[in-house]
Amino acid sequence: MIRDLTDEEARRALVLKWGSVEPDVLPAWVAEMDYALAPPVAEALQQAVLDGVTGYPPDAVDGPLGEAYAGFALRQYGQKVDPAQVLPTVDVTAGVRIALEVLSDPGPVVLPTPAYHPQLDVAGLSGRETWELPVDPGADSAMPDLDRLDDLFARGARTLLLTQPHNPLGHVHTRAQLEALRDVVVRHGARVVSDEIHAPLVLPGAEHVPYHSLDGTADHAVAVLAASKAFNTPGLRCAQIVTADLATRDRLLAEPLARNDSWSPLGEIAAVAAYREGDAWLASLVERLDQQRSLLARLLAEHLPAARMRPLQSTFLAWIDLRAYGHADPAAVALARGRVRVEGGGRFQHGLEGHVRVNVATSPERLTEIVRRLALALA
Amino acid sequence: MIRDLTDEEARRALVLKWGSVEPDVLPAWVAEMDYALAPPVAEALQQAVLDGVTGYPPDAVDGPLGEAYAGFALRQYGQKVDPAQVLPTVDVTAGVRIALEVLSDPGPVVLPTPAYHPQLDVAGLSGRETWELPVDPGADSAMPDLDRLDDLFARGARTLLLTQPHNPLGHVHTRAQLEALRDVVVRHGARVVSDEIHAPLVLPGAEHVPYHSLDGTADHAVAVLAASKAFNTPGLRCAQIVTADLATRDRLLAEPLARNDSWSPLGEIAAVAAYREGDAWLASLVERLDQQRSLLARLLAEHLPAARMRPLQSTFLAWIDLRAYGHADPAAVALARGRVRVEGGGRFQHGLEGHVRVNVATSPERLTEIVRRLALALA
Repeated sequence: MIRDLTDEEARRALVLKWGSVEPDVLPAWVAEMDYALAPPVAEALQQAVLDGVTGYPPDAVDGPLGEAYAGFALRQYGQKVDPAQVLPTVDVTAGVRIALEVLSDPGPVVLPTPAYHPQLDVAGLSGRETWELPVDPGADSAMPDLDRLDDLFARGARTLLLTQPHNPLGHVHTRAQLEALRDVVVRHGARVVSDEIHAPLVLPGAEHVPYHSLDGTADHAVAVLAASKAFNTPGLRCAQIVTADLATRDRLLAEPLARNDSWSPLGEIAAVAAYREGDAWLASLVERLDQQRSLLARLLAEHLPAARMRPLQSTFLAWIDLRAYGHADPAAVALARGRVRVEGGGRFQHGLEGHVRVNVATSPERLTEIVRRLALALA
Repeated sequence: MIRDLTDEEARRALVLKWGSVEPDVLPAWVAEMDYALAPPVAEALQQAVLDGVTGYPPDAVDGPLGEAYAGFALRQYGQKVDPAQVLPTVDVTAGVRIALEVLSDPGPVVLPTPAYHPQLDVAGLSGRETWELPVDPGADSAMPDLDRLDDLFARGARTLLLTQPHNPLGHVHTRAQLEALRDVVVRHGARVVSDEIHAPLVLPGAEHVPYHSLDGTADHAVAVLAASKAFNTPGLRCAQIVTADLATRDRLLAEPLARNDSWSPLGEIAAVAAYREGDAWLASLVERLDQQRSLLARLLAEHLPAARMRPLQSTFLAWIDLRAYGHADPAAVALARGRVRVEGGGRFQHGLEGHVRVNVATSPERLTEIVRRLALALA
């Protein structure tokens, strides 16, 4: 059911990932997949464009988005979501900013790093400091250190920006890990913004636990999520802020329109189609990504045996420790010598050397070539 | 060349304007037109969706948008624009906010009122006060009073948020008016954000003068504009911030990605098609709107003879003074008694009574019915 785009199709469709690299460069960087759209999403979009749906979106709480997401969350995560608590927003980073500006005290924001790179800046845009909480690159677990989190809250931090499942680490938080984390947050009366955009991409062996599915989280947390990562539609511009508490929802709704009015009706239509009719395609995607992570492990063992990588529990983004090969910026070396574009680890954590993020959402043939080129350049 | 949507088509296409009113209500409110898309825009969008262009947009300054807008500005306004100074942004209100946050001192922002209602809030979102500069509803001219503007700057205002052509007043600033305004701004070392989204919709008899076409404006002003108003694509999410000064452009480009990364590639594709291939359709649109404003004047004279209205020089939004009919909120009365939805004037200026904004971008038959219903309800 997953159809690989040809190079030519990928260059037309993925104007950033494929369109902005030189023709001899194999792109494995930005988080887009080299797969054709899920048929229900493609069909809904084509019909919408034929109908001329290019105007303003419907009101935030009247549309079909809430029901569609609630159905998806129940089927995928066994989570009961009140459709009236699902608010559209233009994209996840914008949703995080809105949540900080409207709901959080002005104190610093804790961000476990490495982190999705726009999130390194989002607190600053809202007039807040970012306090990084680095995960030790040599640690077996990608879980942030809760004692250090506790200490940061004790020193004045007011919000935790959580990414779970984690990008770029691929880590899926267990329920016990989340409960321990929640206890620290609650002890300090702090808030959580939980970026769960990768939730549909949890791979076999792990399970997504929505932060709101924990007791005692409704009054201090919002989730920000979207169909766009799993369904390859980040340019369509419709994410969701999910609250679990009417007071929180109403605070967001009471804000001026100009705070949150930039989502696109096409993004909303695509999200509704994905949430309502995308399960079968998504299951095929997860199966493919499961195969790709196994293939990656085999390829690394063969071609880059000194590479270190924690098990990829979710996402299509592999975080690889290449410090053994001695390059401060292996992504730059890979591009220059290997003609393969991956993301340098320093984009995700200030000053971090020797790491790359590799996008595996492509064909087995291309992934093989990606690792071959990395090895050629680095080893 | 302008094709009127049927009611059924309009309900499918314009999900806010038509889709959110009851079936017996005639919608003449939010600024969308009851016309089919310009064929070059519709075709470009259909092709993009078939190609699956749903990913991230290309880099801000590498795409075809700058060249396309520069060509349009030269043909339409005789203005030379450097393509490298055209930056995409998600929509005009977001662009205004970015310009304020990045370029303006923290002092108050002067906003002539009535104003496009999201702009009443945008300075507040960026941590600045809004100082309204109301245009006297009884004055013959819709031009803001420059002595009062001078006084507001003297008292500490740092930025003028200019809307020209003006929404909702329909006023087109002459070159002499803009020069006088610029002189006040320059005297105080203040900045201008010039919202020129309605520039393509200047009607016969007036002429759009881009603020940057005046000498001595490059270092203190940005224009924020879009193809989306004239081409009926506000939901596609791609506006433009135009600078005329490399230092200003580079300040905007130096901001973190998360400040400005939410525009959609579909919006960009639609804008490029509109700017490159939309002139003929736009000329037909302007001709139709010219007929509609004449029809409106005749209809008002016949059905609502005590209504007052300055000449509509631009836009498809008529600002009508209905105070003679004695209703504080004529829009509410029109909806309740006449089953026609227009915008109440109080949305555009706090506390303003007796005014409505009527959208005339529809068929002559519907406009006739709109005014008939207004008269039935109000007179």
